[in-house]
Amino acid sequence: MSSQTKFKKDKEIIAEYEAQIKEIRTQLVEQFKCLEQQSESRLQLLQDLQEFFRRKAEIELEYSRSLEKLAERFSSKIRSSREHQFKKDQYLLSPVNCWYLVLHQTRRESRDHATLNDIFMNNVIVRLSQISEDVIRLFKKSKEIGLQMHEELLKVTNELYTVMKTYHMYHAESISAESKLKEAEKQEEKQFNKSGDLSMNLLRHEDRPQRRSSVKKIEKMKEKRQAKYSENKLKCTKARNDYLLNLAATNAAISKYYIHDVSDLIDCCDLGFHASLARTFRTYLSAEYNLETSRHEGLDVIENAVDNLDSRSDKHTVMDMCNQVFCPPLKFEFQPHMGDEVCQVSAQQPVQTELLMRYHQLQSRLATLKIENEEVRKTLDATMQTLQDMLTVEDFDVSDAFQHSRSTESVKSAASETYMSKINIAKRRANQQETEMFYFTKFKEYVNGSNLITKLQAKHDLLKQTLGEGERAECGTTSRRDGRLRLPHFPWLSCPPAPHFVSHPALQ
Amino acid sequence: MSSQTKFKKDKEIIAEYEAQIKEIRTQLVEQFKCLEQQSESRLQLLQDLQEFFRRKAEIELEYSRSLEKLAERFSSKIRSSREHQFKKDQYLLSPVNCWYLVLHQTRRESRDHATLNDIFMNNVIVRLSQISEDVIRLFKKSKEIGLQMHEELLKVTNELYTVMKTYHMYHAESISAESKLKEAEKQEEKQFNKSGDLSMNLLRHEDRPQRRSSVKKIEKMKEKRQAKYSENKLKCTKARNDYLLNLAATNAAISKYYIHDVSDLIDCCDLGFHASLARTFRTYLSAEYNLETSRHEGLDVIENAVDNLDSRSDKHTVMDMCNQVFCPPLKFEFQPHMGDEVCQVSAQQPVQTELLMRYHQLQSRLATLKIENEEVRKTLDATMQTLQDMLTVEDFDVSDAFQHSRSTESVKSAASETYMSKINIAKRRANQQETEMFYFTKFKEYVNGSNLITKLQAKHDLLKQTLGEGERAECGTTSRRDGRLRLPHFPWLSCPPAPHFVSHPALQ
Repeated sequence: MSSQTKFKKDKEIIAEYEAQIKEIRTQLVEQFKCLEQQSESRLQLLQDLQEFFRRKAEIELEYSRSLEKLAERFSSKIRSSREHQFKKDQYLLSPVNCWYLVLHQTRRESRDHATLNDIFMNNVIVRLSQISEDVIRLFKKSKEIGLQMHEELLKVTNELYTVMKTYHMYHAESISAESKLKEAEKQEEKQFNKSGDLSMNLLRHEDRPQRRSSVKKIEKMKEKRQAKYSENKLKCTKARNDYLLNLAATNAAISKYYIHDVSDLIDCCDLGFHASLARTFRTYLSAEYNLETSRHEGLDVIENAVDNLDSRSDKHTVMDMCNQVFCPPLKFEFQPHMGDEVCQVSAQQPVQTELLMRYHQLQSRLATLKIENEEVRKTLDATMQTLQDMLTVEDFDVSDAFQHSRSTESVKSAASETYMSKINIAKRRANQQETEMFYFTKFKEYVNGSNLITKLQAKHDLLKQTLGEGERAECGTTSRRDGRLRLPHFPWLSCPPAPHFVSHPALQ
Repeated sequence: MSSQTKFKKDKEIIAEYEAQIKEIRTQLVEQFKCLEQQSESRLQLLQDLQEFFRRKAEIELEYSRSLEKLAERFSSKIRSSREHQFKKDQYLLSPVNCWYLVLHQTRRESRDHATLNDIFMNNVIVRLSQISEDVIRLFKKSKEIGLQMHEELLKVTNELYTVMKTYHMYHAESISAESKLKEAEKQEEKQFNKSGDLSMNLLRHEDRPQRRSSVKKIEKMKEKRQAKYSENKLKCTKARNDYLLNLAATNAAISKYYIHDVSDLIDCCDLGFHASLARTFRTYLSAEYNLETSRHEGLDVIENAVDNLDSRSDKHTVMDMCNQVFCPPLKFEFQPHMGDEVCQVSAQQPVQTELLMRYHQLQSRLATLKIENEEVRKTLDATMQTLQDMLTVEDFDVSDAFQHSRSTESVKSAASETYMSKINIAKRRANQQETEMFYFTKFKEYVNGSNLITKLQAKHDLLKQTLGEGERAECGTTSRRDGRLRLPHFPWLSCPPAPHFVSHPALQ
């Protein structure tokens, strides 16, 4: 009884085997499901990307059109403006130049975003739909190959089943053959004991012939069973060997499938998916990077124009534009009365003493005035420097605002938190205008001073020359300053400005 | 008569003088007009710029909102999708990662363009309106100073007029005094001739008293007129000197005004205009440059993710995600029948010879199969390489499209002219799919071959071992390959793939 429980019954073995096969079949089905799901989520991703880029393309186009409209609105205004004729070519003032470049940049951005739309619609989306086709096609082909692999596996396991059954059969037969042989050997033994008694009572010799024939029969049977047993034993051994060899083959095949073939199958599904997707994304990136480069070039042009904002050259342009308004008039000439032949200051007695006195008065007056006005000039310079510092403060860096936007924080507060806060502005403007007021007061004062100096200086110079001539008794002329007044039309271009202007960088 | 035409009449001189003054006045008026026009066109420019940036800000905001909506639409979809739980953290597949980063970049662009709107509205426009205020204020103040300068000029010229008139008057008087004196001298001469006749007839001495008295009278008159003449001559000299000195002063004052003051006046109008405008433009540029930097950073993140698109690691992730589906099953064990104690291939006679023969057959068969399959593999590799080249062609550079947009040409044809033209696409795809087909055919062939080899190899190895043991009369076990089948769940992670997989970059 105990030996019966030691080894499994046939049907137990079959049940176990079938359970194992069922498990494998389930796995294979699940594997397909998994591949299918993979492909489905890829198709979903590709569809989302297509939708995304279609919509993004629309947005880019709307943006491009708005920018185009914006630029056109002002460009047409400029074309129609009567000043346009002036402003173009040599008379273009530096702020207007900046303005034109900003409009140009707007048109450029408009074009670039239109290009973005074009690339998304006619390139990126096309690629994405092609990848979708590929995913579907490759999934089908891979499934086809997968099915073949699965069939192969099942074929192998079926063979295993068959050879196992064969082994069981032959083993059963060899067992029964063996038991039959054993039985025959028992009978032979019994017969052998009988013949032992026989040798003891030799007197009764009429029984011998029957005994001899039965012994022969038993021996023949035993030989037959011996042969049958050996035959079955050999068959069983061969079947077992086949079973063992197929077992090894089956396990090897299954192992190969799980270790390599499944992985290959997935690779077939993936074939080129990542590469094609990468190329699509790179197209998108290339477009965005190129848009950026183009924008950057445009901004650099504007920045260069801003660096070249120049009040001085603009001033000269304006004066060129209406030169007849700014060119100095002819000087006033001496008008002799009724053929009066004296045409210069006469310094003979009795007026000489008086003129000499007047000359010395002028000299000392000028000395005082110049000292006073020099003081005013110094204050003026200092004030202008303060104004300059206020006007050129570097308050235009807004990178903080984008730092915000890079983090998750809200950006709304960007500008208000900076330098541009209402309080700051008010304070700075009040301060600036106060300084400006003071500057103008000082400037008036300075102009008045220098006007007076100019006039007195002229008289002083003329007297000096006259008195000198008086001594040299030589005839000079009051029109010695023609050279100064007959300057080329724009003296400020040719003649160096008076010293007090050199000291005003802003006024240069 | 000829001497009369030689010199101008008083009224001619006055007329000339007044003409000259009129001309100067006109110029001064025109100069103000010019300054006013300058300020007006500046105000116009500033107004245009404000309008422009207000509208641009609106456009940026629209763009920002569209992008935000776009990103949100897909983000919410992802949040709600059941797969999301899988995809996040360690199970995030590389293409999904790219997709998430594209969405993130869209949100980032949305934020940045909102920031642009904020800076235009709350910074750039504010600055522009302040500059407008400045232009108006400065024009007023400058005009005030200008008026003062003009008054000064007119004052000077009026003085000149007065002293000229005085000179004319005194000169006229000295002329008449001179003529009167000459007349007196003539009379005296006449008287002198009379007294000459007198001395000739001394006989008539009753006339003498009358003659003496008339001579006296004439001399007295002559002295009076002499005095009058000298007095007027001196007055005239002083007047002329004054006139000449004022002439010099006036010309100097006018010259100073045209050479320096006008220029200073324009500088007063310009005070800080260019500097403030530059700061405004720089704010705009700073915003645009920062937007660009932020965009660039985002694109770099995406590019990095695209570089990391990796089919192999994705494959492993998928297999991790459903590991129970991909883990190799338990191997099939040998099932001994009814307590059969033999559990390995028996190679004793009589089967030994047969097994030995079978072993040798397997050996030669395997050799042939391996050579054949190696040939298939080579073709497979070559085909895969061709496919790889097709799948990784660098066809994503769209910079030409932006070269177009940089020129004035239309951009519409950008993508269609490139690599993405319908014909090219069709040709390339047909070619690719053909190669793909061939690859799959060869792959099937290869899989079949390797399956067969695997099974025969397993049998061959088992026989080899058995026969070896047969000689060593030692008991082996067929379950020696447990180690291989009892690998960690993902053998492809731990065990090096079979050599023929190494040679398939795409299948790795």
